[in-house]
Amino acid sequence: MSLQSTQTDFAAIVENPDAAGAILLVCEHASNAFPAPWGRLGLTYAQTHAHVAWDPGALDLSRALATRLDAALVHAPVSRLIYDLNRGPDRADAMAARSEVHDIPGNQALTPQDRLHRAEALYLPFHTALHGQIVRRLALGRATVVVTIHSFTPIYHGQPRAVEFGVIHDVDDRLAQSIVAAAQATTGLNSALNEPYSAADGVTHTLRLQATPYGLANAMLEIRNDLIATPQQVEAMADRLAPVLQTALTAMAEG
Amino acid sequence: MSLQSTQTDFAAIVENPDAAGAILLVCEHASNAFPAPWGRLGLTYAQTHAHVAWDPGALDLSRALATRLDAALVHAPVSRLIYDLNRGPDRADAMAARSEVHDIPGNQALTPQDRLHRAEALYLPFHTALHGQIVRRLALGRATVVVTIHSFTPIYHGQPRAVEFGVIHDVDDRLAQSIVAAAQATTGLNSALNEPYSAADGVTHTLRLQATPYGLANAMLEIRNDLIATPQQVEAMADRLAPVLQTALTAMAEG
Repeated sequence: MSLQSTQTDFAAIVENPDAAGAILLVCEHASNAFPAPWGRLGLTYAQTHAHVAWDPGALDLSRALATRLDAALVHAPVSRLIYDLNRGPDRADAMAARSEVHDIPGNQALTPQDRLHRAEALYLPFHTALHGQIVRRLALGRATVVVTIHSFTPIYHGQPRAVEFGVIHDVDDRLAQSIVAAAQATTGLNSALNEPYSAADGVTHTLRLQATPYGLANAMLEIRNDLIATPQQVEAMADRLAPVLQTALTAMAEG
Repeated sequence: MSLQSTQTDFAAIVENPDAAGAILLVCEHASNAFPAPWGRLGLTYAQTHAHVAWDPGALDLSRALATRLDAALVHAPVSRLIYDLNRGPDRADAMAARSEVHDIPGNQALTPQDRLHRAEALYLPFHTALHGQIVRRLALGRATVVVTIHSFTPIYHGQPRAVEFGVIHDVDDRLAQSIVAAAQATTGLNSALNEPYSAADGVTHTLRLQATPYGLANAMLEIRNDLIATPQQVEAMADRLAPVLQTALTAMAEG
């Protein structure tokens, strides 16, 4: 048996942990890797490269923002279809049997042991590593805000989406309100609060788990993926959004 | 250098992880151990055995309740004066320089690196282990409520305390309200909600960190330590409180 096929603990990937900026970036849907022991879950090659498997462009944008903001970045090593790291292990959609219009063959009829194995191999190490970054920053007295980076498909269930940049909050809306105000004032992007999803859809799990217990300001950013489909678009979007985040941090601090 | 003096990761102690009951007991102040590399922090032997160093009786009561409730139990291996596991690493009282009337010599003028070392050696492994228990239960679909067990001194800053049994809640008060109602109805204990502390004192950190993100019902129990000072008292108190917790769980489920 190869090393790959027996690996059962997929750690989060941490970049720039000693960056001086206050923003800690998180990208839970960064990867479309389908490693053993799970493999492709019966999906086609095309499906494993589509938005159902990951958030296309989100990791590239996260890295481009990390450079501009001098930010640390924590991102996922495995597709969200094997385990969606932005969902608790009690949630059916942590290991979705169906996502948008796609059945996921390898996620049908999972046993409790299957769910436990994935939660312990993927969810627990990811959130432990992210928690470790937060604990470290807090112990050292470093200012910290948590921003998760996602992308969404321009057409969902056959319907086009007009919004280009969504900013989603959980119970603490300070940072999200500041970001959406700055984006609307300066970017020309079609920017909206709590679009195309909101906390009621269960998408703020990472914020609830990692930021809220420490009273850290936080927000989830959603960028329409047709706007970050090429390296040039990613750089251009990072050039637009990095000043938005800096302005929002300043505005929130001056509250 | 001995093994003891180089140990830097003090794991939580987990008992009865496969217990069938819904209650997960947590005892953050279970221990008055002062291991290397920190040692006794300049405290006297008497201080290391007094309530300032730990919650006397809390671990014994937790174990007696765990037996009666068929509950899992997670408890601390080290004194709260080295690191108070019920405080985040951004809090000064996580490594208190003064507690009640006691100066803590070994906690004066800690550097950021000192704080980081303790947080990574004590706080992070404890909460990772507790989180692991919760993740495991949720992945397996097991009903779970989180109850932390504490004791308090009958005389604080020279003032006697009349309350015997305090039940403290954070944002979700379902379980705490049910417990205090059951205790007042059946035990004859002087029982009160949010006494001798409340969430405003920062004592609900474990509940916020571990239970609230998953929507798990939770409560913090405080027992006056003169009522659980002997093995006989501990058994008697467990006999009184175990039915209270069972009744409260049933009432909350029917609520």
